[in-house]
Amino acid sequence: MTRKDGRAPNDMRPISFERGFTKNAPGSVLASFGDTRVLCTATFVDGVPNFLQGKGQGWMTAEYSMLPSSTNRRKARDRTGRVDGRSVEIQRLIGRSLRAVMDFKQMNERTIWLDCDVLQADGGTRTTAISGAWVALHDLLMDMDRCRILRGWPLVGQVGAVSVGRVAGEELCDLDYSEDSVAEVDFNVVMTGDQEFIEVQGSAEGAPFSRPALDAMLEMSASGCLEIFKAQKAALGIE
Amino acid sequence: MTRKDGRAPNDMRPISFERGFTKNAPGSVLASFGDTRVLCTATFVDGVPNFLQGKGQGWMTAEYSMLPSSTNRRKARDRTGRVDGRSVEIQRLIGRSLRAVMDFKQMNERTIWLDCDVLQADGGTRTTAISGAWVALHDLLMDMDRCRILRGWPLVGQVGAVSVGRVAGEELCDLDYSEDSVAEVDFNVVMTGDQEFIEVQGSAEGAPFSRPALDAMLEMSASGCLEIFKAQKAALGIE
Amino acid sequence: MTRKDGRAPNDMRPISFERGFTKNAPGSVLASFGDTRVLCTATFVDGVPNFLQGKGQGWMTAEYSMLPSSTNRRKARDRTGRVDGRSVEIQRLIGRSLRAVMDFKQMNERTIWLDCDVLQADGGTRTTAISGAWVALHDLLMDMDRCRILRGWPLVGQVGAVSVGRVAGEELCDLDYSEDSVAEVDFNVVMTGDQEFIEVQGSAEGAPFSRPALDAMLEMSASGCLEIFKAQKAALGIE
Amino acid sequence: MTRKDGRAPNDMRPISFERGFTKNAPGSVLASFGDTRVLCTATFVDGVPNFLQGKGQGWMTAEYSMLPSSTNRRKARDRTGRVDGRSVEIQRLIGRSLRAVMDFKQMNERTIWLDCDVLQADGGTRTTAISGAWVALHDLLMDMDRCRILRGWPLVGQVGAVSVGRVAGEELCDLDYSEDSVAEVDFNVVMTGDQEFIEVQGSAEGAPFSRPALDAMLEMSASGCLEIFKAQKAALGIE
Amino acid sequence: MTRKDGRAPNDMRPISFERGFTKNAPGSVLASFGDTRVLCTATFVDGVPNFLQGKGQGWMTAEYSMLPSSTNRRKARDRTGRVDGRSVEIQRLIGRSLRAVMDFKQMNERTIWLDCDVLQADGGTRTTAISGAWVALHDLLMDMDRCRILRGWPLVGQVGAVSVGRVAGEELCDLDYSEDSVAEVDFNVVMTGDQEFIEVQGSAEGAPFSRPALDAMLEMSASGCLEIFKAQKAALGIE
Amino acid sequence: MTRKDGRAPNDMRPISFERGFTKNAPGSVLASFGDTRVLCTATFVDGVPNFLQGKGQGWMTAEYSMLPSSTNRRKARDRTGRVDGRSVEIQRLIGRSLRAVMDFKQMNERTIWLDCDVLQADGGTRTTAISGAWVALHDLLMDMDRCRILRGWPLVGQVGAVSVGRVAGEELCDLDYSEDSVAEVDFNVVMTGDQEFIEVQGSAEGAPFSRPALDAMLEMSASGCLEIFKAQKAALGIE
Repeated sequence: MTRKDGRAPNDMRPISFERGFTKNAPGSVLASFGDTRVLCTATFVDGVPNFLQGKGQGWMTAEYSMLPSSTNRRKARDRTGRVDGRSVEIQRLIGRSLRAVMDFKQMNERTIWLDCDVLQADGGTRTTAISGAWVALHDLLMDMDRCRILRGWPLVGQVGAVSVGRVAGEELCDLDYSEDSVAEVDFNVVMTGDQEFIEVQGSAEGAPFSRPALDAMLEMSASGCLEIFKAQKAALGIE
Repeated sequence: MTRKDGRAPNDMRPISFERGFTKNAPGSVLASFGDTRVLCTATFVDGVPNFLQGKGQGWMTAEYSMLPSSTNRRKARDRTGRVDGRSVEIQRLIGRSLRAVMDFKQMNERTIWLDCDVLQADGGTRTTAISGAWVALHDLLMDMDRCRILRGWPLVGQVGAVSVGRVAGEELCDLDYSEDSVAEVDFNVVMTGDQEFIEVQGSAEGAPFSRPALDAMLEMSASGCLEIFKAQKAALGIE
Repeated sequence: MTRKDGRAPNDMRPISFERGFTKNAPGSVLASFGDTRVLCTATFVDGVPNFLQGKGQGWMTAEYSMLPSSTNRRKARDRTGRVDGRSVEIQRLIGRSLRAVMDFKQMNERTIWLDCDVLQADGGTRTTAISGAWVALHDLLMDMDRCRILRGWPLVGQVGAVSVGRVAGEELCDLDYSEDSVAEVDFNVVMTGDQEFIEVQGSAEGAPFSRPALDAMLEMSASGCLEIFKAQKAALGIE
Repeated sequence: MTRKDGRAPNDMRPISFERGFTKNAPGSVLASFGDTRVLCTATFVDGVPNFLQGKGQGWMTAEYSMLPSSTNRRKARDRTGRVDGRSVEIQRLIGRSLRAVMDFKQMNERTIWLDCDVLQADGGTRTTAISGAWVALHDLLMDMDRCRILRGWPLVGQVGAVSVGRVAGEELCDLDYSEDSVAEVDFNVVMTGDQEFIEVQGSAEGAPFSRPALDAMLEMSASGCLEIFKAQKAALGIE
Repeated sequence: MTRKDGRAPNDMRPISFERGFTKNAPGSVLASFGDTRVLCTATFVDGVPNFLQGKGQGWMTAEYSMLPSSTNRRKARDRTGRVDGRSVEIQRLIGRSLRAVMDFKQMNERTIWLDCDVLQADGGTRTTAISGAWVALHDLLMDMDRCRILRGWPLVGQVGAVSVGRVAGEELCDLDYSEDSVAEVDFNVVMTGDQEFIEVQGSAEGAPFSRPALDAMLEMSASGCLEIFKAQKAALGIE
Repeated sequence: MTRKDGRAPNDMRPISFERGFTKNAPGSVLASFGDTRVLCTATFVDGVPNFLQGKGQGWMTAEYSMLPSSTNRRKARDRTGRVDGRSVEIQRLIGRSLRAVMDFKQMNERTIWLDCDVLQADGGTRTTAISGAWVALHDLLMDMDRCRILRGWPLVGQVGAVSVGRVAGEELCDLDYSEDSVAEVDFNVVMTGDQEFIEVQGSAEGAPFSRPALDAMLEMSASGCLEIFKAQKAALGIE
């Protein structure tokens, strides 16, 4: 099968992380996987949720939203208090994924907010969001460190995420919308910089999938994450 | 490690499916995995959601809720329109899982409702719900078949779900609440009767997990599902 | 007129109170009046509502809900923040009725929650709920007493409730759904163990009713409550 | 016991119904029981609720609300979608009470709205509302009759409502706020012009009440309603 | 052009402010501009919003609502939490306008509530509301002064508001509904007693308007406000 | 007074309109007035609101929202159904302003959505939004024209908006946040390309303002709009 943009099955789309995209948030990154563009920002506020009060440590929470114009067909805003189940699911995933590499004991009672707003959607918005949020989080923590409001460095690992799927019986990496919308299996994998898993989420959209197919997709996602880790470091100018 | 109830690491808790638990829904099953008890009911209403209207086929949707008294600490009801993200996530999982084995072309424009209400929670409510919902769905479809309102038999496979996790470095099957609340990894697997995957969802609650740990949990979940499939068939008196 | 199940006009349906129905709430009773089954649980939390803070006494509040599958036609959940007026009315009635026999000065600043969840509806859900909630409350208070967190015994009386109505010109006791749906008058009476009234609520559904008809219904409800009181005591093994 | 305003126990406060209080609604009545003043309006819109569509008859629904400034302590508006249980209960009572004297087959598929807005509250707002709504309804129907949009005259009876209660062991009629706030029993009775009951709602606020006390309150409410019926007719200039 | 009621283009409708219209709020004024009647009340509660806490000064907030029966076509209540944008806009205008003449340092940490409830609408409800709210506010402050709970007199100016517009190419003052509904330009002006501007809000409903038209409407509104100031003082018996 | 960025009192900040900023909406413009950046998109959907159905013409509606990270202090999302009054007010202004130059009879029954999402806020977000929305609308209409789904060209004029204000007694054009937050008067003016007014909204934030001050601000806004019109045309490459 030939992919629309000529990619090989295990190729990622072009990845970029544009830091300092807006000026008011200490961490502000426009993350792009191909035509998918997500503005990921990181800020903090004083205080922590009720269940943590008085424990003397920090917390982190995430929100995800798509701009109405980010999709081909205008998407209504979440204004009426109605539950958009998909957004809820995704922002919970983003929060869990990034919390997995945070040592909150290195922070005082402050809450970090990761806001992931999709400006343009072309498949893989959640994986783009997680990967970009990590860069924004890094920038925020650097800023907090400069202001001497951290106890120690809380970020204990790198985080990247990639979607893989099976289209017409073949495993593909980093699906764009045209591929995603016809995929038989949809897999999202979140990994740490030392190649361990934070989240593995696979759904059979069409037919159930076998263990060998699952194994193939896990392999593919590991190699995709390597490219993301490289791009994140390049953007931050580290290593 | 010895488990509280003397189980081996890959043992399931006692499984039961009590059919006809309430009389108003055609499918009504009290599903129990140990002390976790979920009332799973299946009913149908005429009509389908907007995006399917006029296509001449059926649909299925699921709702999940915990009774306030089902947990140790009373849980507030979802009455105020606030989003309980966890419930949203779970009911979307239930719906996707059971839809994976339905051939909706065998139904007219009707929507099946699967309601999973947790009466008593002791870990694994979502996997108990999915496994019980399959039995309730089977009963509903038998009833619809008797009423001659199906085109053909729409249920193309069996569905079971199991939670596995890693506690104190060891993989365990079908965690109860005391185990689940200290698990380092939380894995939920939904499988078909012929051992293929419908959903694979694993989260690192504490530390990230390696590929070998992932493989061990997948093995364990497959063997757990075999027990569930047996119990479902016994309850239905088939095979 | 002959009743569907052969009862005399002033007969109650079979009454049962199954204690310890679920294990997480200290008071957990499956109350049944015929085919109507309501899970009544009693739990407590620390603290009282604003208007009572600092007065050094307790409080009690009730919630009532029907499971979607409890009725013949699936009932949508109260999730969207919309007001289901009937549920609001009923839970206010339950709360008032049980508070009438509580001496809150015997408790510290704690709030008792009575949750009445209808598993199966066949008429008289509110009277079944009130009668069962009293048993659950008794169990909770026994438990609190054992834990020595009461000042004195706060339950100063017994509470039972019964519905009566007029169908085809004749007064009937404890209507089932088939009778209730065609009743001309719908009456709910809540009484104390020493035969005084806590609540009297009668509505003309069809034609207005005369004073003699009202008197007949009050007599009938008093005799119905006697049976409930007996069943409650038997379930608790008292007297 | 002497009442604040010198009334005998079974005296009503001064009653008035000021018709045409506002000009946009065909029925618009400022109803006063002493210092309690409720603006009762009656209007109609085309169409009926779903459950009545196609049956070729009319319907009537009621809403009740208190202006924020109507009480001594400012009452927050019902704007946030929160349930004010008391308002829900009262407006359901108003609707049921007035529907009891309507023959909806005399109307086409139109819905009458009764809006009862409390301008000034001093006890008995719901009984003032019901009594005033009947006058407003009469005016609306006269107007519809003049416009020849009724099949026949749908109003088959007169409706009045009165509150009675027991204060310091004595039964009192038409309680004002100072009496109502210390009442041991709170009783609201809705009657038809020919002295039959539409609604009987009594609650023990303090101690339960005996059958003789109940009988005394029913007697008192019947005599109170007679005065209301007279005042309604005088306002309408009938009989 | 001749106006329906014979007014000259720059004539106001008859203005009246009926003080003490209801008895529970210290300031309670029925304000009328012709057939438009708005109940304006002023009350206070202890405390201030979060952003002012601890600053030792007062605050004022306003709410505006139309009774369902105030318009020709019944207006649904704001109960469902839906945003009625127009009401939001108007109540923000009322709040800003009256705050402009308040010296909150003369008050302790208390919040004044201005409630403007439209009983009857015939155009110009917001300007009637602002003008009447000023009288109600004056009455409230007099009452607070009598109770010695002010530091000094906080009301530093008089406030009136008028609507002007262009109908069929001609500027008109204080439009009634029949004029307002066909106006090409809709202008609301809020002024202080010494003829300075607090708010100027003009919208082209049909065609855009020129600078000379704008100037003509500003002149007209200034002369309209003079009449309002006179009527306010007459109602209060000052000057 | 010297302005932070060296501007003269009647200077605008640098203006830019970056067309095609995102790819899914036919009109997508990143509008910047200095550091204020608003993403303005224009899309259409089939159908019109109820009040226009069957009239055979089009409609246009606008929504305005600030990204949580657009301000210095993180702004909570409008997700809970709570009313953010300021956003409601602004989006109503945007809608009215752009509708003033549309001839909806040139469209079939379609609704144009203008979405204005603030990416970065530094004062004047509503005027930047209106000015940018006009460019996005122009692009959308060109696209609809190319697709031959317009009857004629519906855009009958150009629209620009500017904020002016008085700071420390001096009138300033196009205030940034540091100026806006201390302004005594806040004025927003929306004009057409031929120098007529669509909206004039001025509020005294501190002290009321005189007629000469008002005149000075109107002059200033007219000259500011001229610059905007020039920039809009340059961006579109017209004239």
